[in-house]
Amino acid sequence: MAKNITSPAEDFSRWYQDVIREAELSDAAPVRGCMIIRPYGYAIWERIQASLDASFKETGHKNAYFPLLIPESFITREAQHVEGFAPELAVVTHGGGKKLDEPLVVRPTSETIINYMFSKWINSYRDLPMLLNQWANVVRWEMRPRAFLRTTEFLWQEGHTAHASEEEAREETLRMLRIYADFAENVAAIPVIPGRKTEREKFAGAVDSYTIEAMMGNGWALQSGTSHYLGTNFARVFDTTYLDSNNEQQYVHQTSWGVSTRLVGGVIMVHGDENGLRLPPKLAPVQVVIVPIARNESDRTRVMEVVDRLKVGLKQKGVRLEVDDSEGSSPGFKFNYWEVRGVPLRLEIGQRDLEEGRVMASPRNAPGREGKFTIPLDSLEKEIPDILERIQDEMLEEAKERMRSRTYSVDTLEEFREAITERPGFYSVWWDGGPEEEIALQQDTKATVRCIPLEQPEQTGKCIMTGRKTGNRVILARAY
Amino acid sequence: MAKNITSPAEDFSRWYQDVIREAELSDAAPVRGCMIIRPYGYAIWERIQASLDASFKETGHKNAYFPLLIPESFITREAQHVEGFAPELAVVTHGGGKKLDEPLVVRPTSETIINYMFSKWINSYRDLPMLLNQWANVVRWEMRPRAFLRTTEFLWQEGHTAHASEEEAREETLRMLRIYADFAENVAAIPVIPGRKTEREKFAGAVDSYTIEAMMGNGWALQSGTSHYLGTNFARVFDTTYLDSNNEQQYVHQTSWGVSTRLVGGVIMVHGDENGLRLPPKLAPVQVVIVPIARNESDRTRVMEVVDRLKVGLKQKGVRLEVDDSEGSSPGFKFNYWEVRGVPLRLEIGQRDLEEGRVMASPRNAPGREGKFTIPLDSLEKEIPDILERIQDEMLEEAKERMRSRTYSVDTLEEFREAITERPGFYSVWWDGGPEEEIALQQDTKATVRCIPLEQPEQTGKCIMTGRKTGNRVILARAY
Repeated sequence: MAKNITSPAEDFSRWYQDVIREAELSDAAPVRGCMIIRPYGYAIWERIQASLDASFKETGHKNAYFPLLIPESFITREAQHVEGFAPELAVVTHGGGKKLDEPLVVRPTSETIINYMFSKWINSYRDLPMLLNQWANVVRWEMRPRAFLRTTEFLWQEGHTAHASEEEAREETLRMLRIYADFAENVAAIPVIPGRKTEREKFAGAVDSYTIEAMMGNGWALQSGTSHYLGTNFARVFDTTYLDSNNEQQYVHQTSWGVSTRLVGGVIMVHGDENGLRLPPKLAPVQVVIVPIARNESDRTRVMEVVDRLKVGLKQKGVRLEVDDSEGSSPGFKFNYWEVRGVPLRLEIGQRDLEEGRVMASPRNAPGREGKFTIPLDSLEKEIPDILERIQDEMLEEAKERMRSRTYSVDTLEEFREAITERPGFYSVWWDGGPEEEIALQQDTKATVRCIPLEQPEQTGKCIMTGRKTGNRVILARAY
Repeated sequence: MAKNITSPAEDFSRWYQDVIREAELSDAAPVRGCMIIRPYGYAIWERIQASLDASFKETGHKNAYFPLLIPESFITREAQHVEGFAPELAVVTHGGGKKLDEPLVVRPTSETIINYMFSKWINSYRDLPMLLNQWANVVRWEMRPRAFLRTTEFLWQEGHTAHASEEEAREETLRMLRIYADFAENVAAIPVIPGRKTEREKFAGAVDSYTIEAMMGNGWALQSGTSHYLGTNFARVFDTTYLDSNNEQQYVHQTSWGVSTRLVGGVIMVHGDENGLRLPPKLAPVQVVIVPIARNESDRTRVMEVVDRLKVGLKQKGVRLEVDDSEGSSPGFKFNYWEVRGVPLRLEIGQRDLEEGRVMASPRNAPGREGKFTIPLDSLEKEIPDILERIQDEMLEEAKERMRSRTYSVDTLEEFREAITERPGFYSVWWDGGPEEEIALQQDTKATVRCIPLEQPEQTGKCIMTGRKTGNRVILARAY
């Protein structure tokens, strides 16, 4: 077991902090609630960005950049929006050595400023749909910060689109939710439950909010991405209208959707183990590390000759690879170093391996001697991509299996109350409560309604809070 | 000539604004001095980012992310730094609904917060060199804003490195300056003069600042990238030390270097003409636009069949391509649309072209009928990359030729005073003045010392301000 890492079974929250520290993912900033994303943590975010950005562009979205500073009056225009965000705002009152006439808000999200611009850019139905995205930092004052999961400043992307009809905007909302779900499963190896948020949990200013909910290693839920149908709520207050083909002014129907650096926290908590981080190959900044093993200089020369050749060959195949030939540290130190950082596959090559024409492979997801296997040197370049593919599949399957085995069905509040404490997980229950029942549930059990899954049963049952008959099942869980 | 664009000869400043508006590069924000980067402008920035980011990584730098909000006290620690930046700061005084105990500054640059972290991360010489970069937004209150060139918020990258010795840090400073110069010339097709800044013009907190200076279409200079040797100035105030191999504490030697969205302004002003933007192929988000021309539906079907095939083939070759088959607008409208946006190469394909087995090509850098040529359909995929290469070379050569022909050598202040008004350009003069002479020169002629070029003559001459003998020549110009 790696030093300095608490067992996740013993104290998941300390384990999480330990992994972040030991893998050098982030560090605390001098301003409370802010965080420094260290190079290795940032490299994971860059992989997330590259993958999602490609999906956004494939579906016709373009990146733009809107200002950080928003007039305070903008935020107050949409009633629900200001109610939701006012307590979290950072406010610039002085600029260029002077007190400002109107305070400026550091953007907590950009619906208002984007509507201000959309109202200028959109004139006729020919300008629609308008499909924009931005990669940016946002600030929301955070009272209980937690690295990656809840920070006062975080990095994210926010998509903002305007459409001629509700139908089209609703399609877009779900299209982007699907892109998030696909990314989570197929790149981050995180299975998710896509669903709709309740009235209480929805975005401040949205008509409907959708979410993908993922299960962490301790059975808690993490909201990992959201997509909102905003209706005409912002269009009405910013007068974002277009002339339709009958020459009549109409409000645009809008969406917004985002994922943030919080996803990095999700990756840690879904895949990490008692030895540190584990990264699925498609997301890993380093997919393969080669540790050359040499007892003397002549060993070293021969081993490095082969390693250098493999390096070139694997890089050509698009494998993200590091060779750890640093001097002054033992192979054991290096193994630990890359293990804590969750590199999916480690290859060891020594003089004896060369003689036997093979390489020793240690996949991160099957630790210890049992997981090791050898790869013939002459087929290595061909086999590595397949092995990485297999590790990716195995990690997804493992996460799926956990979610399956820790998703329970309960019928009464009493049953749920006991179960959620003993066996944290996802609880599927019949539900037709409103905000009041949600508050009561949370006070009683510390759990919240995570979502109303898109997939619903055909049957009906009795709501665990109201006792009323309903056709809706929801997922309850404790959540970050 | 494109409608709505002032002639650059008549009013360069209005021309610049017109091009930005007509090519939809940016728009004014509701907060004075801020700007919205529209999708097409942002796509140019993305190309700049991709190219530089690859160079940074190739030279061993890693990306990280440091917080937006910095305690005000940090900025005040380095005496020159606070003097330089205090008048430009935006200050957050309220957060989460409360007045803050200590005001926070929105970063104008990150030397201070980065030193705070470096002092934690760097312990021994084994931790050096530390080579980081971040892509981020910064805020510097701007009294005379100008789109891309001077905005209160702008996007940039800032590299920050720490080294064991002055020599190594100075090497790094010049290495990064060279990377900027290479990028400017070989990607943006902008020739530059690399040089050192004078005491008056150097970065607040640096020992030495280096710059690349580019000549705009009106003969003015644009500082297009800077690289600073910071010495131990920040290390001393943040106690950023390391244990050397003799077990003694030493201050690290540091560098910082950056380019910003201002580069987009440079691209516009170097390459643009009376018809709008012109983009060098390596920087162009869209390198080739195909405009299919069809008079009727059967034409259209046959033309589009060929266009679709070309599209697939060219994309496979890595060509960034758009097909403008939008309905409801004339070919002339489309030609103008893409011309204003500076797409390097336009291809027209109609039924008659198909019959003759050719395509009509219009390179943006050789407008009008004279520039047009035909490409045989069956060799088109092969020829396009070469044509783009040629356009790139021609655009660089054109910019070089302008810089050559508008760089003058003068010997006296009188001569310079008259010349700079009549023929704005770069003026090479003998110089050994100090800050006072620089201020006097600027008040007299509105010109500043742009840089002390790295390449210096062997001879000596008489300083145009002090009359003293000197071996230094500098470049004087009016500058943005």
